[in-house]
Amino acid sequence: METYQSEKAYLDDLSKRAALPEGFQCAVGSLQFQPVEKIYAKPLKMNLTLIKADNPVSSFGAVFTKNKFPGAPVLIGKKRLQEKTMQAIFVNNKISNVCTEGGEAAAYAICQEIGKACNISADSIFPASTGIIGWKLPVQDMIKAIPGLTAKLGRSEMLGAAQSIMTTDAFPKLRSIDVGEGRIWGIAKGAGMIEPNMATMLVFLLTDLDISRENIRYALKEAADLSFNRISIDSDQSTSDSVIIMSSRLKPAVPPEEFQKALNKVCMELAEDVVRNGEGTGHVIQVDVKGHLDEKIALGIGKYLINSPLVKTAIYGKDPNVGRILMAVGDYLGTNDIDLPLDKLRIYMGGVLLFEENQFQLSVDNEEKLYQYMVDTALTPENKGFPEHDKKVVIEVIFGEGGPCRRVLGSDLTYEYIRENAEYRS
Amino acid sequence: METYQSEKAYLDDLSKRAALPEGFQCAVGSLQFQPVEKIYAKPLKMNLTLIKADNPVSSFGAVFTKNKFPGAPVLIGKKRLQEKTMQAIFVNNKISNVCTEGGEAAAYAICQEIGKACNISADSIFPASTGIIGWKLPVQDMIKAIPGLTAKLGRSEMLGAAQSIMTTDAFPKLRSIDVGEGRIWGIAKGAGMIEPNMATMLVFLLTDLDISRENIRYALKEAADLSFNRISIDSDQSTSDSVIIMSSRLKPAVPPEEFQKALNKVCMELAEDVVRNGEGTGHVIQVDVKGHLDEKIALGIGKYLINSPLVKTAIYGKDPNVGRILMAVGDYLGTNDIDLPLDKLRIYMGGVLLFEENQFQLSVDNEEKLYQYMVDTALTPENKGFPEHDKKVVIEVIFGEGGPCRRVLGSDLTYEYIRENAEYRS
Repeated sequence: METYQSEKAYLDDLSKRAALPEGFQCAVGSLQFQPVEKIYAKPLKMNLTLIKADNPVSSFGAVFTKNKFPGAPVLIGKKRLQEKTMQAIFVNNKISNVCTEGGEAAAYAICQEIGKACNISADSIFPASTGIIGWKLPVQDMIKAIPGLTAKLGRSEMLGAAQSIMTTDAFPKLRSIDVGEGRIWGIAKGAGMIEPNMATMLVFLLTDLDISRENIRYALKEAADLSFNRISIDSDQSTSDSVIIMSSRLKPAVPPEEFQKALNKVCMELAEDVVRNGEGTGHVIQVDVKGHLDEKIALGIGKYLINSPLVKTAIYGKDPNVGRILMAVGDYLGTNDIDLPLDKLRIYMGGVLLFEENQFQLSVDNEEKLYQYMVDTALTPENKGFPEHDKKVVIEVIFGEGGPCRRVLGSDLTYEYIRENAEYRS
Repeated sequence: METYQSEKAYLDDLSKRAALPEGFQCAVGSLQFQPVEKIYAKPLKMNLTLIKADNPVSSFGAVFTKNKFPGAPVLIGKKRLQEKTMQAIFVNNKISNVCTEGGEAAAYAICQEIGKACNISADSIFPASTGIIGWKLPVQDMIKAIPGLTAKLGRSEMLGAAQSIMTTDAFPKLRSIDVGEGRIWGIAKGAGMIEPNMATMLVFLLTDLDISRENIRYALKEAADLSFNRISIDSDQSTSDSVIIMSSRLKPAVPPEEFQKALNKVCMELAEDVVRNGEGTGHVIQVDVKGHLDEKIALGIGKYLINSPLVKTAIYGKDPNVGRILMAVGDYLGTNDIDLPLDKLRIYMGGVLLFEENQFQLSVDNEEKLYQYMVDTALTPENKGFPEHDKKVVIEVIFGEGGPCRRVLGSDLTYEYIRENAEYRS
């Protein structure tokens, strides 16, 4: 990623990578509606986004939230995984269709209308919703808007799709990569730290590379595990998180490892975009846990660190408060009764050694270096419409010599996080 | 607890419950020192607190942090549990003696001097430190201050002890209860949400009731499990958390269950004081998880809810954003692969039904009620020097009919939390 000086420069750059893989079209539209719940006097605006394959595709897959109260679209999406072919993804923002009366029926009714309008099977459409939890979809208003939406299907609205699925995301997120004769393309919205109830992460991935259903599902799981499952903004997992992939299979296959590598890259970039995107994000934090550790423990340490409010606020405050990092590591290990040889533990931040041989390695010089590092990596935690830079605060937690590196990404904890998440109704 | 109109009213009330059990004395003092680390140009003030039994006591016990990087006093305290008798507790604030070179030797040297000054065994003293992690104790300055401190030992400084162990605690915390012919008495400081590095919780409990070492240790473990182990302010567990109890055995024993009940009460009140005490606390939150659930799962749900940044910020913002509560419950169960019959789940806040029969039970009336409830239970999240009231936001998560209730306490997430934890060096 580069440093952008303006929203226009960012959108121009995004346009360059926005071309859809062959065999797909998309459309965006919007509607005004009066929420049934009548809490707001004014009508609200809802964006609609439709992604459609020219023909039914047999290679598709999805991973969904593990939350035990999934939204209606997630419940339907899980069933759709059994279908022989799929052909479209339909997304609305503003209201996430979760645990309301008739929620599944509403989603089915909308799929039915889209199927009719596009002349495709209603059962070949993945629904996806993001927005306020607990409200009902304005089904009739949405159905009225469908003919206007499907009429707009084309290949020129790829950046528009990335914008249309946003709720209060700071900037649209679109990544793509050319592989062999084809492409892998993805857009994302979310998560956390965005508008209160709208912390859902949605990711839609498209490719024209030939790949079997079995292989695309395997590749998606691995890519999601390495990317979206290793980011944490506020440790909460939404009821609607969904990552969906489809292939038109119109371009020659590439070797599986090449496909995997490319898909991993697109997913990791989108995951980092999601973290950097938060209006309240003051720093992107990367924790690398290295050593011959069980993967679950290594990721556990990384996620615990990245979710520690004391670590997060210290980084926001540009405070080289390294005691908190050690405290978080020790708390995770102690609380979970995990015994590791701690005498070989070293901790670095921004390349500066903080802890070694059971002792803090503090000095006024180092503290000054760390302070400057946190100044340098800071983001303006306000909605600027584009990512300012791609710098991160890198914390390394190293257990002895050698072994793999497990990486997690997260963000700091800022005033803006509180404002975004506490004040939207006030 | 009552509602206090002023700090004086609170301190007056505290004085009424401050009488020490028989057989103990205490003293408080302070010193000025220049930190070795020379980060601050100005000298700092350190408070010293000494609690001493008139005679060596055989009935004593302690529970310590599970953090894998315990401070030197915790390492020493664990060894002290093997001693035949103990006689004193010595506490300093400002610097927590954690992972520095020579940290244990420093604590031993100070115990040595106190032992000499009081004519007691140096091995019969529990050291305790709270404050900045990573700095070294000013041992020579502390040793110089000891004769002045021990000279002040007496029975009139009980409230002073509660004040002296504070770091940036908003108000002193002292609880006591008369049982049979004796008393149980306790003071606490901490935790979290207080000054950055000073998130340590220290609790010192004294009684004159006759009880064996085995029984007092059993009782302490149960009381701590029900109180201090069920509070969570920011999910971080300090490197120095310590709860220490001693009995002078000067008063007749009471039945074990009576002692347990009284000790539980003192500990639960102190635990709630610790939560309410935070300068950044805008609401005290109580989560009751009810039903025939495994205790670990019930407490897991409660702690997950109380640590969810989205739930915490919603309550701070007085936002009846009930979707977040359900999301957090579902996230905990999903992430941990726990299957529970969710169709019997009901969720209440402040007595208002939020969720039942797999659906949100929302209405404009209920949202207004919840908003008023959060207005009513709010604390001014600034240091007032006294707790304003004892109101809590009560969330009930009920799985079917009957079964035990497991309770956890925590606080919301406020601007003041960020300020306290991000800005202290700026």
